[in-house]
Amino acid sequence: MITTDLIGYFSAFLTTFAFVPQAYHSWKTRDLSGVSLPMYSIFSLGVLGWIVYGALIASWPIIVANSVTFVLACAVLCLKLKHR
Amino acid sequence: MITTDLIGYFSAFLTTFAFVPQAYHSWKTRDLSGVSLPMYSIFSLGVLGWIVYGALIASWPIIVANSVTFVLACAVLCLKLKHR
Repeated sequence: MITTDLIGYFSAFLTTFAFVPQAYHSWKTRDLSGVSLPMYSIFSLGVLGWIVYGALIASWPIIVANSVTFVLACAVLCLKLKHR
Repeated sequence: MITTDLIGYFSAFLTTFAFVPQAYHSWKTRDLSGVSLPMYSIFSLGVLGWIVYGALIASWPIIVANSVTFVLACAVLCLKLKHR
């Protein structure tokens, strides 16, 4: 069971922090032409939904992980809106 | 509690299917310059981890949602590897 939990936490870490290189790449290059505006709009809304869900079931791991993702996804979304 | 579950399912739906417009955009335009290779590498690995985690705790919603995301994220990753 500890191995299972570790796989869960590791997966959460990867899918959360995967957005760091995308946000950095977008910020550095200002090249957002290949980035989909609908994707980041829908994704950011979904992540916001996860934060609300985490708050409703009082799950700090869900709240914390999705808050990090939300900041990163919104950064890409804002850059896309500015440099499309 | 039903409202809470609905918010969870709706959020899962949004964060899963958000990758449809990105995969379509990448496939149609072949413009992958703004898409981060490390992001899609790390993200796909993380989603694969979620599928393993879902299998270990026998959660079909986790398995199904992440399998859809995995196919879409891998499609973007393959297009990035081909057209970078």
